[in-house]
Amino acid sequence: MEKPQIGEEMQQKQQNGELVDNIRIERSKEDVLIHLELANKKDDLETLFKDVKFVCMGGTADRMKNFFSLIKSEMKRTLSELDIQDESVDFTRNGCRFSMWKIGCVLCVNHGIGYGSLTIVLHEVIKLLHYAKVQDPILFRIGTSGGVDHPLGTVVIAEKAFNDFFEEFFEIPVLGKRVRLPAILDGNLAAELKRLAIEKCPDIPVLCGNTMSHEHFYESVASVKASICYCDDDIERSSYFDSLRQNNILNADMEAVAIAAITNRLGIKAAVVNVIVNDLSHPTENLSCEILTEWQTRPQRIVAEYIKEHLRGSVKQHIK
Amino acid sequence: MEKPQIGEEMQQKQQNGELVDNIRIERSKEDVLIHLELANKKDDLETLFKDVKFVCMGGTADRMKNFFSLIKSEMKRTLSELDIQDESVDFTRNGCRFSMWKIGCVLCVNHGIGYGSLTIVLHEVIKLLHYAKVQDPILFRIGTSGGVDHPLGTVVIAEKAFNDFFEEFFEIPVLGKRVRLPAILDGNLAAELKRLAIEKCPDIPVLCGNTMSHEHFYESVASVKASICYCDDDIERSSYFDSLRQNNILNADMEAVAIAAITNRLGIKAAVVNVIVNDLSHPTENLSCEILTEWQTRPQRIVAEYIKEHLRGSVKQHIK
Repeated sequence: MEKPQIGEEMQQKQQNGELVDNIRIERSKEDVLIHLELANKKDDLETLFKDVKFVCMGGTADRMKNFFSLIKSEMKRTLSELDIQDESVDFTRNGCRFSMWKIGCVLCVNHGIGYGSLTIVLHEVIKLLHYAKVQDPILFRIGTSGGVDHPLGTVVIAEKAFNDFFEEFFEIPVLGKRVRLPAILDGNLAAELKRLAIEKCPDIPVLCGNTMSHEHFYESVASVKASICYCDDDIERSSYFDSLRQNNILNADMEAVAIAAITNRLGIKAAVVNVIVNDLSHPTENLSCEILTEWQTRPQRIVAEYIKEHLRGSVKQHIK
Repeated sequence: MEKPQIGEEMQQKQQNGELVDNIRIERSKEDVLIHLELANKKDDLETLFKDVKFVCMGGTADRMKNFFSLIKSEMKRTLSELDIQDESVDFTRNGCRFSMWKIGCVLCVNHGIGYGSLTIVLHEVIKLLHYAKVQDPILFRIGTSGGVDHPLGTVVIAEKAFNDFFEEFFEIPVLGKRVRLPAILDGNLAAELKRLAIEKCPDIPVLCGNTMSHEHFYESVASVKASICYCDDDIERSSYFDSLRQNNILNADMEAVAIAAITNRLGIKAAVVNVIVNDLSHPTENLSCEILTEWQTRPQRIVAEYIKEHLRGSVKQHIK
């Protein structure tokens, strides 16, 4: 299936800095973002979301609500000069599928687990930003992951994102045929996050390297904890982990490659920052809730530093 | 990758009617079902779950809680002879990833959206039943789906489950290689559900036929509502929908083929009962919340009839 040549209309849209690449999506037509329970005609998306600069995503609604609280207090503490609108409501109303909070320029959304759940919310959030006429947003995944040999609690900022087959592609079925999107993350953004992590969060162990995305938590690594034995050959299993090491794959989540592919396709800057909470080659340890909670704030704290630095720049510009 | 021959130990396990097919899973060892927030040593899974006969799964926690309320009142109303334990608690404690409720022999669990989320909870629920020494459970997915031409509100009981490529397989990456599990649902169970639906729920339009599972909500059908235009050729799109019709595919969800494959591999009876809430070939209509809520109870009511019939049998046996 050949992607059709970009027509004049689309060229014009891209020049205008629009976020979507689908000429059928018109701001004038009614569009229901069904999983977010918002609509471009019923809801005044431009008023509600026009100031969004950062989209922060993670698996669970709880974690994203925690991040919302963290960034809210950080913003209020360090940026008292700014008039920040505080909207402590779940914008998805029922929060039945996903939950979404916003404070000032920061939108916090959960994406559930895995590709199928993530792509739904990603398309709908991007369309939401499109209808709100947002330009140049930056998207962060702040999540958890399984590590390859590294100490639990280490944060990995992804330089490259791989699929299950050691490829920098996100493979998707489109009308019954396989289509591949190149998965490319923003290198400068990753480097800037690493610099800030080292400077501002010296207590957090941080690595930059490659992140693999697994389609399945148990299947992809032939986990000995699956209800089905997918591989009984320990040599084959250990050879797989050797391949991960050879490709400088530090950790695996279940979303990075999809985020890298879709944002790259639309020219949206994105970064994936995951903390390691288990080791891929060994069954998960029974971590205390307190330790897990602290670790889960680590990617959040690093991303918060990036957002604060951006806002300090805005304040300076404002004071000038 | 060849699946190793089943050894003596596993043969013994299968003869004993055990649910898992992984000799590394021993009841004597500690096992944390991390996404359910339960553990076989810390929690007395046998006492809590030994009477489970039916596992009912669906996407959202809300829908499964509604089903829990429905089956609870149905059981109490029609089966007052039975002493039913009412445990109105979310067994996953925080309900951070998934939520789970139980009444008598019925376990209600949500599985999120898509394969990645579903397989996690499926493996953990099956291990939970294994540790609880449950034998011959029956698993139902009661969900929502997109239809092919059929009136919205129609319930489809799946006879066969297909993947995105018109195959009765669930393809999974295992240690970087593609592995295929045959996806087979229980034909007798589907037929029995249809009989009960016609007899007991004459107001519900019901069809039996094939259900496709889509990896992605927007990508799989090259939706005109995606933020990326995956296919601009209406002839190609309409030829895809023709193929669906030719294969008697009545609807598509995002989980059926995975459920069919994993349960078939483990010898667990399963059925997939979905209501059609949108049409795959047209953008989703803006349905009222009331209509959607009523439609979502339709698969639940049909499965409830099956459970009640089973329980009436138990009561008769008990009275004898």
